Amino acid sequence: MPDTRARTDLYLLTQQFYARQMQALDGGRFEEYAATFTEDGLFQHLSTVEPCRGRAAILEMLHEFQRTRFGDDPVQRRHWFSQIVLDPQDDGSWRSTAYGLVVTARPGVRQPEIAPSCVVHDVLEVDGDDVLVRSRVITYDHES
Amino acid sequence: MPDTRARTDLYLLTQQFYARQMQALDGGRFEEYAATFTEDGLFQHLSTVEPCRGRAAILEMLHEFQRTRFGDDPVQRRHWFSQIVLDPQDDGSWRSTAYGLVVTARPGVRQPEIAPSCVVHDVLEVDGDDVLVRSRVITYDHES
Amino acid sequence: MPDTRARTDLYLLTQQFYARQMQALDGGRFEEYAATFTEDGLFQHLSTVEPCRGRAAILEMLHEFQRTRFGDDPVQRRHWFSQIVLDPQDDGSWRSTAYGLVVTARPGVRQPEIAPSCVVHDVLEVDGDDVLVRSRVITYDHES
Repeated sequence: MPDTRARTDLYLLTQQFYARQMQALDGGRFEEYAATFTEDGLFQHLSTVEPCRGRAAILEMLHEFQRTRFGDDPVQRRHWFSQIVLDPQDDGSWRSTAYGLVVTARPGVRQPEIAPSCVVHDVLEVDGDDVLVRSRVITYDHES
Repeated sequence: MPDTRARTDLYLLTQQFYARQMQALDGGRFEEYAATFTEDGLFQHLSTVEPCRGRAAILEMLHEFQRTRFGDDPVQRRHWFSQIVLDPQDDGSWRSTAYGLVVTARPGVRQPEIAPSCVVHDVLEVDGDDVLVRSRVITYDHES
Repeated sequence: MPDTRARTDLYLLTQQFYARQMQALDGGRFEEYAATFTEDGLFQHLSTVEPCRGRAAILEMLHEFQRTRFGDDPVQRRHWFSQIVLDPQDDGSWRSTAYGLVVTARPGVRQPEIAPSCVVHDVLEVDGDDVLVRSRVITYDHES
């Protein structure tokens, strides 16, 4: 079991990891986002569709979601995280649980939509200063 | 007076403390929340009622608030914090001042309510890596 | 190039710097806010007006903005930041990119306005534990 200092360092690493990951996602850099998962990483984005496994599948899903949900609609989304909790697991990985809100802005509309409220359930693999997502499951507060 | 390194470590501890504390509160684990206060900790939740003192009183207040405010209404609340500022006090405790927003989701309603905006005024007691709230007073921006 | 540990420390310093800076701004302590810039710091607040350069100009702009935008309107604003990314630059400064939301509360109105969604583009100068803003440009998601 890692000691307190290790956990403290990891908290900072995780904050920075999430910040870069979300700026990649919101910037449309989907390959960069997919590369934040392990090779066989699992991503359950919506409760209504099967989870994706592997970077190629994640990348394809993101493009598909972008196309079907937004099409040519020029929205700018911003994924906000808060209240990250890290818990060590027996196999050396870390469970990360964070609150999420999606901010969606449209050209000319000063007030963004802020929805939905969700919880991000990650399992993180940490190797030195490198963090990867082994699995990510999003649960939505309005679906519970 | 603690040096900069000590304060830096404490900032991380405080972020993690708040994250666990809010996930406990929003998860309905009120005993876990009450245990984040000192034995005689003070909690001023609303400006219109007297503050509670002591874990038993805090626990009772939380159950009462849940019952009278929400009853059987199946809301999911998420307490977000931001912009935490820590200031050392002469007695070794720390003043913590943070912005707060309460996100409230309802089943089937994708867009949560985000209200009110408040400021969390804490006095924290720190013993090694352990943080406890000696007092918490919430002020509401729409009441000022 | 600073090593990972240096960057990790800086991430914490930056979080604390932003927290104090925003509490100063939202508390109307504009001189304290202006002092968080370098002597000749640049602040591009709105896309529609020229950027300010220097603390005196920033201070004057803040008072002017407060007067013309809000007048005697007793709003309480809260600036929230999220997903801060830090990147080192060749000259030793740091590029900081963060999401921002402005929460505006009015007396008697429980639900605040949360708008606009923006991105804060800073260049930070770091000297030991001291952080100053060399330049800040805000871009607004509804203007892109």
